[in-house]
Amino acid sequence: MEVNIGLLGCGTVGSGVVELVQKRSEMIARLTGLEPIITRVLVRDSHKSRPVVFKHEQLTTNASDILEDPEIRMVIETIGGIEPARTFILQALRAGKHVITANKDLIAEHGAEILDTAEQVGMDVYYEAAVGGAIPLIRPLKESLTANEITDLKGIINGTTNYILSKMTATGADFDEVLQEAQDLGYAESNPASDVDGLDSGRKLAILASIAFHAKVTLDDVDVTGIRTISATDVAYAHELGAVIKLLAEGTDRDGNLSLQVRPTLVLKDHPLAHVSDAFNALYVRGDAAGDLMFFGRGAGSLPTASAIVGDMIEVLRNLRMDTALRVRHLLLPHKRVRRGQGEPTRYYLRLTVRDQSGVFAQIATIFGLAEVSMETVLQKRSSHETAEIVIVTHEVGQEQLNQALTTLYATDSVLTVHNVMPVTGGAQ
Amino acid sequence: MEVNIGLLGCGTVGSGVVELVQKRSEMIARLTGLEPIITRVLVRDSHKSRPVVFKHEQLTTNASDILEDPEIRMVIETIGGIEPARTFILQALRAGKHVITANKDLIAEHGAEILDTAEQVGMDVYYEAAVGGAIPLIRPLKESLTANEITDLKGIINGTTNYILSKMTATGADFDEVLQEAQDLGYAESNPASDVDGLDSGRKLAILASIAFHAKVTLDDVDVTGIRTISATDVAYAHELGAVIKLLAEGTDRDGNLSLQVRPTLVLKDHPLAHVSDAFNALYVRGDAAGDLMFFGRGAGSLPTASAIVGDMIEVLRNLRMDTALRVRHLLLPHKRVRRGQGEPTRYYLRLTVRDQSGVFAQIATIFGLAEVSMETVLQKRSSHETAEIVIVTHEVGQEQLNQALTTLYATDSVLTVHNVMPVTGGAQ
Repeated sequence: MEVNIGLLGCGTVGSGVVELVQKRSEMIARLTGLEPIITRVLVRDSHKSRPVVFKHEQLTTNASDILEDPEIRMVIETIGGIEPARTFILQALRAGKHVITANKDLIAEHGAEILDTAEQVGMDVYYEAAVGGAIPLIRPLKESLTANEITDLKGIINGTTNYILSKMTATGADFDEVLQEAQDLGYAESNPASDVDGLDSGRKLAILASIAFHAKVTLDDVDVTGIRTISATDVAYAHELGAVIKLLAEGTDRDGNLSLQVRPTLVLKDHPLAHVSDAFNALYVRGDAAGDLMFFGRGAGSLPTASAIVGDMIEVLRNLRMDTALRVRHLLLPHKRVRRGQGEPTRYYLRLTVRDQSGVFAQIATIFGLAEVSMETVLQKRSSHETAEIVIVTHEVGQEQLNQALTTLYATDSVLTVHNVMPVTGGAQ
Repeated sequence: MEVNIGLLGCGTVGSGVVELVQKRSEMIARLTGLEPIITRVLVRDSHKSRPVVFKHEQLTTNASDILEDPEIRMVIETIGGIEPARTFILQALRAGKHVITANKDLIAEHGAEILDTAEQVGMDVYYEAAVGGAIPLIRPLKESLTANEITDLKGIINGTTNYILSKMTATGADFDEVLQEAQDLGYAESNPASDVDGLDSGRKLAILASIAFHAKVTLDDVDVTGIRTISATDVAYAHELGAVIKLLAEGTDRDGNLSLQVRPTLVLKDHPLAHVSDAFNALYVRGDAAGDLMFFGRGAGSLPTASAIVGDMIEVLRNLRMDTALRVRHLLLPHKRVRRGQGEPTRYYLRLTVRDQSGVFAQIATIFGLAEVSMETVLQKRSSHETAEIVIVTHEVGQEQLNQALTTLYATDSVLTVHNVMPVTGGAQ
């Protein structure tokens, strides 16, 4: 039996979906007893040439042709962005269609509205492709690991910044130069803010944390620092310290108190995340029963993303075949609280420019001592005849103590600049 | 509503299941709408003291008390081994109970019989815990990645041998010494044959390959080499070559021709599998759409294994709630053929003891040249006043060509011993 599917959007991801469904439709039919047919495709321009070939009547520029077609049982949204994707998805659900989306922005921002609507109307929404591309993350968290209380998430979940940081590490080039190159190659968007300012990672972390910690989490709950301030100098110091700089997304749940952070981090080379390069993504998960787990793979791209979407599609076909819906529920535990600005104690890397005069270092040491922040490593280099550069790695310290030391540092005349403050992870921890 | 569950066996894994179900029963009830209750537990000795406490009436030494109890909807088997586990599971299925098992030996050897029976009687069998402990592997392969044609599996799926090889690498000790120590610590069984001879890895590979490649695969289809012959000398040479020795399980599907191998392998340190140490497991998967993926985590232990079993239990509860069964089908593609002794072309490591006389090396070089096996690296060391040791790493070469060179080497008087022949993976490949 055939199942009619409507596709909203036919860019990189949408084309991948069409290609993969065509290639695997026979196998999917044997697996599920139902044959998926993409009957209608919403496009902006029906005359544009595309990597996949459609019959003329398949293409439409009018969303109603899909959303109001009673024959269409399932809608796949690959438009991206908030509107009109949000309106289309809500309309599709209310019209009795199951929805699959790769739209991380939408799920991070309006996930609760969409999932609540789906539950009210008895339809399913799947969004494996929204985080980590091809890597199965959402489903393992929602299904395989459900017996666990998950306490920690830690990962590299944005390919663009990981590409930029990997290139900076490999070539020693500065941020702006590598960003330009990434834009020229199409790895970074012309407006790269969402990626390089850490917002994309923050949204994906919000999605993962909602599921793993059974809490309502949005981007507003995440402390986000991007990578614009990371310079070739920091990359070189990281190397000297046996580390690489990665944009890590971290979530912790300590007895219902959640902390969510996206920030550039020095990852020591003995940590597996140090070896996740270029456009790859990886997520560490710690569960109280399972222990430590890691999931690694391609975080973006046409076919990797399509792999996750068509995986979800097969899930919907199984549901249709079994005549069930809302099989996997969202569990929200009301006692969970997000505490912003309350990251776990960690070691920190700081780079300062100070006046090159006698007594400055003793002054800094005193500031750290008063704040009870002890230093593990200190590198000091003259940077000009009047200034010196000091890099400090602290022992493990709470965020409040560190902030106390930083406040005093900022107010100290001989400290000219505090360039970067980053956590350090890996090693004997 | 409560769902009664029978537990067969209450050793390390069974106790973990009881502990986890007790700890999470409320959360599971909120998630699934059904509360799991382990009502009966089959034990050998009902008076033995256990880490978990039971009411007297919960324990039984008679399997029929569980298998014939019409109130019990689900049976969890943690006895291990073939019999009586096989008979119990078949009996439970025929009595209309869903089955969860962690029994890799049974699934590898009698998986087809059990799954066929389950299909006939309309019951489900889940076995996530049979491979890779806590790591979600079976479900991602069966569900998340179904849109892919999976072409490669490569992993470390036996904790005991990985512990032994990691210890040999860390301490420089020889196999027998480390095995003894592992046995004293309880990491290796008193009869370690199944682990160290690679059979356990072979069975798990058979399970993974059946699912990933949609084929009937048993241990008989796997070329298996264990780690008994690996010496401290090989470990030291591997180190010199920038590699570590790991027992890798590898499966490939090339247009329906399957090759399945378990063998000690030199893994170059740039490959992520080189960093999977001690009792951790990891599996690489390559799909035609998803690209490369890796799954990493604890391969054994009471709670990690229980995490997978209770994850399956929640799945069965969802099925019960939805009143469905056989939701995820096994797809067998009849054109798949296993070809034994036909591994992919790879680089090889060989260690030879030869007579220390002039012309021997030239002779060996000629043998390799005639078989069209070219050498990438050669290390030569005098081992006594009469013999020398030669280690060769070849360029990529097919198994047949290598065998041709080996046959001639064995027949050559000046070649006294061929100690170990192992593939080399990682690097620029």
